[in-house]
Amino acid sequence: MITTYTRKVVPPINMLFSRKYRHENTVIDIGGIQIGGERVVIMAGPCSVESRQQIIEIAQAVKKVKASMLRGGAFKARSSPYSFQGLGEQGLHFLAEARTATGLPIVTEVMSPSQVPLVAAYADILQVGARNMQNFPLLCSLGGIRKPVLLKRGMGNTLEELLLAAEYILSAGNHQVILCERGIRTYESATRNTLDINAIPVLKEMTHLPVIVDPSHAIGKAQFVTAIARSAIAAGADGLLVEVHTHPAKALSDGEQSLSPSMFATLMLEVERIAGALQRHI
Amino acid sequence: MITTYTRKVVPPINMLFSRKYRHENTVIDIGGIQIGGERVVIMAGPCSVESRQQIIEIAQAVKKVKASMLRGGAFKARSSPYSFQGLGEQGLHFLAEARTATGLPIVTEVMSPSQVPLVAAYADILQVGARNMQNFPLLCSLGGIRKPVLLKRGMGNTLEELLLAAEYILSAGNHQVILCERGIRTYESATRNTLDINAIPVLKEMTHLPVIVDPSHAIGKAQFVTAIARSAIAAGADGLLVEVHTHPAKALSDGEQSLSPSMFATLMLEVERIAGALQRHI
Amino acid sequence: MITTYTRKVVPPINMLFSRKYRHENTVIDIGGIQIGGERVVIMAGPCSVESRQQIIEIAQAVKKVKASMLRGGAFKARSSPYSFQGLGEQGLHFLAEARTATGLPIVTEVMSPSQVPLVAAYADILQVGARNMQNFPLLCSLGGIRKPVLLKRGMGNTLEELLLAAEYILSAGNHQVILCERGIRTYESATRNTLDINAIPVLKEMTHLPVIVDPSHAIGKAQFVTAIARSAIAAGADGLLVEVHTHPAKALSDGEQSLSPSMFATLMLEVERIAGALQRHI
Amino acid sequence: MITTYTRKVVPPINMLFSRKYRHENTVIDIGGIQIGGERVVIMAGPCSVESRQQIIEIAQAVKKVKASMLRGGAFKARSSPYSFQGLGEQGLHFLAEARTATGLPIVTEVMSPSQVPLVAAYADILQVGARNMQNFPLLCSLGGIRKPVLLKRGMGNTLEELLLAAEYILSAGNHQVILCERGIRTYESATRNTLDINAIPVLKEMTHLPVIVDPSHAIGKAQFVTAIARSAIAAGADGLLVEVHTHPAKALSDGEQSLSPSMFATLMLEVERIAGALQRHI
Repeated sequence: MITTYTRKVVPPINMLFSRKYRHENTVIDIGGIQIGGERVVIMAGPCSVESRQQIIEIAQAVKKVKASMLRGGAFKARSSPYSFQGLGEQGLHFLAEARTATGLPIVTEVMSPSQVPLVAAYADILQVGARNMQNFPLLCSLGGIRKPVLLKRGMGNTLEELLLAAEYILSAGNHQVILCERGIRTYESATRNTLDINAIPVLKEMTHLPVIVDPSHAIGKAQFVTAIARSAIAAGADGLLVEVHTHPAKALSDGEQSLSPSMFATLMLEVERIAGALQRHI
Repeated sequence: MITTYTRKVVPPINMLFSRKYRHENTVIDIGGIQIGGERVVIMAGPCSVESRQQIIEIAQAVKKVKASMLRGGAFKARSSPYSFQGLGEQGLHFLAEARTATGLPIVTEVMSPSQVPLVAAYADILQVGARNMQNFPLLCSLGGIRKPVLLKRGMGNTLEELLLAAEYILSAGNHQVILCERGIRTYESATRNTLDINAIPVLKEMTHLPVIVDPSHAIGKAQFVTAIARSAIAAGADGLLVEVHTHPAKALSDGEQSLSPSMFATLMLEVERIAGALQRHI
Repeated sequence: MITTYTRKVVPPINMLFSRKYRHENTVIDIGGIQIGGERVVIMAGPCSVESRQQIIEIAQAVKKVKASMLRGGAFKARSSPYSFQGLGEQGLHFLAEARTATGLPIVTEVMSPSQVPLVAAYADILQVGARNMQNFPLLCSLGGIRKPVLLKRGMGNTLEELLLAAEYILSAGNHQVILCERGIRTYESATRNTLDINAIPVLKEMTHLPVIVDPSHAIGKAQFVTAIARSAIAAGADGLLVEVHTHPAKALSDGEQSLSPSMFATLMLEVERIAGALQRHI
Repeated sequence: MITTYTRKVVPPINMLFSRKYRHENTVIDIGGIQIGGERVVIMAGPCSVESRQQIIEIAQAVKKVKASMLRGGAFKARSSPYSFQGLGEQGLHFLAEARTATGLPIVTEVMSPSQVPLVAAYADILQVGARNMQNFPLLCSLGGIRKPVLLKRGMGNTLEELLLAAEYILSAGNHQVILCERGIRTYESATRNTLDINAIPVLKEMTHLPVIVDPSHAIGKAQFVTAIARSAIAAGADGLLVEVHTHPAKALSDGEQSLSPSMFATLMLEVERIAGALQRHI
C-alpha cells in the first residue's frame, strides 16, 4: 500500500511533558487558584483591553459570577496590519488596575522575546497565541522566566507539535505550562474553527500538564459558546478561556463570539453543573 | 480581498429540515423509545454481526446496563474488497433473534436502493453510513418507506450538505430522520477522525430533527470513547451510537474502538450523570 | 510520542491495482483513442446535458479544437433535491446523438447499480462521481461490465481509499479503470476545492492505471482552469476532464467553472505545448 | 441555510499587495537576477548549513546545472527542541563563503526581530518560514530593512492571510516581498503536505508580487519533487525553492525530501522545457 509520510523525531527516552516522565498531574498555583487539580478554572474577559473603564467593568462583571481569572489582550496578533493592534503597555497597566480592583489574576498575550520581561512584570499567566505556537525563540524566552505560560495550539498544528512546543519551554527550565485547545482549521465553514474535542482525553493521557479549552475561538459565534464550554468540561478539560464583553456589538475585536455578562452567567451555571457531575467544582 | 468561493443553492423559502418550517423538535417514537425528546437514547452493539451467538450475547450485555437499542451491521461498507463484508441477510436474521431475546429495537445499515425493502423488513431504524450520505438514489428510496432513517454525516461533508441530504429523504415523504455526527477528516493523525462537536449546537439551531453522536468512529480508540460520549451529551446531543463487543480483540471489524461490556457500563454511568446535569435521562 | 491512528487493511500479497502486480501502464482503448499511453486525452463538455441542441452544439465546439471525447451528465448528483437533477434517459439519448454527429465517444455518470445496464448501453466510459467513490454496490456492479470506468476521487478520501475503490472494480473482473483527481476538501475557501497535484506522481508510482485530472471542479472558477490544466499535464496526468459550455452564464449547473469555447481553445493550445515539452501529444 | 462564518477585515480601499494598487508585476532584482519577470528563478541548496565544506560543495553542484541562487538554513525552526537547531551565525558565515566561491546570492531564514540585523548583514534574501508567517513583530521588523523578503505560507493559513502578512511588510516600507507556496495541511497522509497548486493562479490574479513554490516541503519525498516542480512552473510560478544535498541520507534535516545533484540536474532540464513551453527561461 501507500507508505504514509512519517515525521521523524528522535526523542530522549522520556520527554518532560510525558506521563512517563511524571505520572501525577502537574498542578499550577496562581495566588491560591490551582489549575490541573479538582477545580475547573474559568478565565474570562474581553479579547482586547480597550480602555481603563472597559476592562475594570468587565473584570467586575465576570468576578460577580465567580470567574477565577481575568483575560484581556494588550498586544494583539491581528491578521491585518490595519486592524486594531491593542493598547500595548498601557493595556497592561489597565489590566493591573483591574486586578487591583477585583483581586482576579490576569492572563495576557506576549508576542516576541523582547516583550517577555515587560509582560512578565504585569501578568500572572503569559499567553502564547495560536499564531506563535511554533515561534521557537519566544518559547525559549518563556522557558527562562518563573511565571506560568498558557500555550495555545496553532490552528494548523497537530497534538504532537503542541506537546513538542511545550517541551521547548519545559526543557528551558520553566515547568509551569498550561495547554489550550482552541479549535483547528478544517473544511467546515459554518463555524470559525472546529473544536478538536478529541484532543482533551488524548492530551490528558499523554501529558501531566493542565489542559484548558477556549470555546470562543473554537466556534466563533456567541450563541453556541455555552454548549461548547459544557462539552469541554465534560471531556475532562481543567478550565476555560472565555471571551466576555459588556458591549459585544461595540467590541474592537471578536465581538461576534463574545458573551454578554448575562450569557456568561448562564455559562457559569451550566458549567458548574457539568463539573459537579464529574466531582469537580469551579 | 479574495472572493470566497460560494456554493449556490436556490432553496424554496423554507426547507423541510429547517426550524423555520417546523419550530418544535421532531420526536421519533420507536416502540415507546422517544428520540429527540428529554431522553438521551443509547444505541450500542458491535460494528458487525458476526454470528448468532455473538449478537445475542452482546445484546444482552448492553441491555443489562440500560442501552435502549441494539446496533450491528449485516451489510458492511468496507474500504477494501478483501475485508469482511458482513453476513448479509443472515446477519439481519440474527439481529431479529437478538431483538426477540432482549426486546431491544435494532439499527442496521442499508447500502443500496435494492436492499431497502429487505432491510426495512427487519430493522427498526435504517442507517445510512457516512460513505453513502450523498448516495442520492438511496436517500430517495428511503424517502419512500415509513421507518426512521439514521443519516450519518460523510467524513468530508459540511453541515449544510448533511441537512440537504436529510432534505432528500424528507421531501420524498419520510419525516423520520435522525442525524448523526461521527467525526470528520482533518490533518490530525492522533485519532481516527475529528469529532466536530461544534456540529451539535449548530445543527440543533438549524433543524428540528434529532441529532446523535457516534463517539466510537469519532475518535477510534476505545480508551477515549467515554470522555467523548460525555462531551457529546453535554453539548446537547439526543443520543449516542456506540460500538461494544464482548471480545474486542477478536472483532472482525473496528475492534480497536469497541468497548468491552465493563467499559460500556462505565460509559453509561457517566453519561447518565451528565444527562442528569442537563435535566435529561437515559 | 503520540501513536498515530493506523487504518488496518490486510491485503493479499499484491493488489490488482499495484505496479507490483502489473509493472507496465494499463492502456485503455476507446475506439482508437488510447488512455494511459503517450497521448494526453482531453474529455470536454457541459456539466449537464440540457437539451439536444445544447449538447450537439457543445460537442461540435470541443471537437473543432481537437478534444478527444465528449463529457456530459444525464443523471446528476446534486447536493440539494431542489437543484436540476438531469434529463435522465433522454439525456443519454441526446448524448448518443451528439456522438453520431461528431464521432466523439461519450463519458457520462452512473449513480446506482440499477442504472448500470441503461448507462452502459449508451456510454463509452461510465463515470463514478466523487460522492459515489465508496458506493461499493455500484463499484461491484461496474466490475461486472466490459466498458471502461472513470472513477473520481471522493472529496474527503485518501489516495489509498481511491486505489481500494478501484480494487473493488478490478477484483470483480473489469480491468478498465481510469482514476480521476478532482480536488479535495481543505480549509482554503478562495477556491471550490484544493487540487491535490501531489496525487499525480504518487498514483503513477503506485498503480499502472491511467490517471486524469478534472481541473474544473478542482478550482471552481473558469479563469483559473487553464493554468490548472497545464499543471496537471506537467505533473504527468494522462488526460483531462474539462467543463465547457457555449453559454456558461446560462448553464443549469456549474456555470461559474465552465469554459467558453474560446477559453477552451486557449486551454487546448497551452496544454498541447506542455504535453510537447514532455514528449506527449493530444 | 447555514450562515457561513465570515472573517471581517476592513481594508483601506486598496491594499498595497493588490493588483488594484499596482497593476504591473513587481520585479525584484538581486544582483542582476530578476524575480517576477520572464525568468524562472531556481533557488537550491540544503535544508541546513551543516559545515563549511558541505555548503560550498552543494553550492558548486547546484551552480553547475544553472541554479540562480543558493538556499540554506543557519537558524532552523524545528518542531522538537532536541533536533539539530542550525549553526547560527557560523552558518551565515559559511553561506557567505559559498557565495564568494560561486557567485550565487544567498537565501536564508530569520526567526525573530532581534536576528534581523545579523541575518540582513549576510543574506541577499531573508526568508520567513511557514511557522512564522503570522509572527507580526518579525514582519514589522522586516518592513524596516531594504532587502527582499521571501514569505512562506503557513501550513494552516489561507491565501488571504498570506497576502495580509505580506501587507505587514509592505505597509512598513519594504516593497520587495516574494510569496512562497509550500504545501498546506490536509487529511491526506501519503505525502508530507498537500501542494495547493490552485494558489498560483489565484495569487497571480490578486497580487503583483512574485510567487514561487517549494516543491520539496510540498510533497516531502525526493522521487516526486521533479514532477511537482514541473507542475508549479506550468501553473505560472516565478521560481522554485528546492532542497538539494550531496549526501541526502546523511543530511541533518529533511534528507527524505532532498534531491541528489543528479536528480536536481534532471529537475533543471525538465523545468527548463516547461518554462520554454510558456515562453519563459531559467
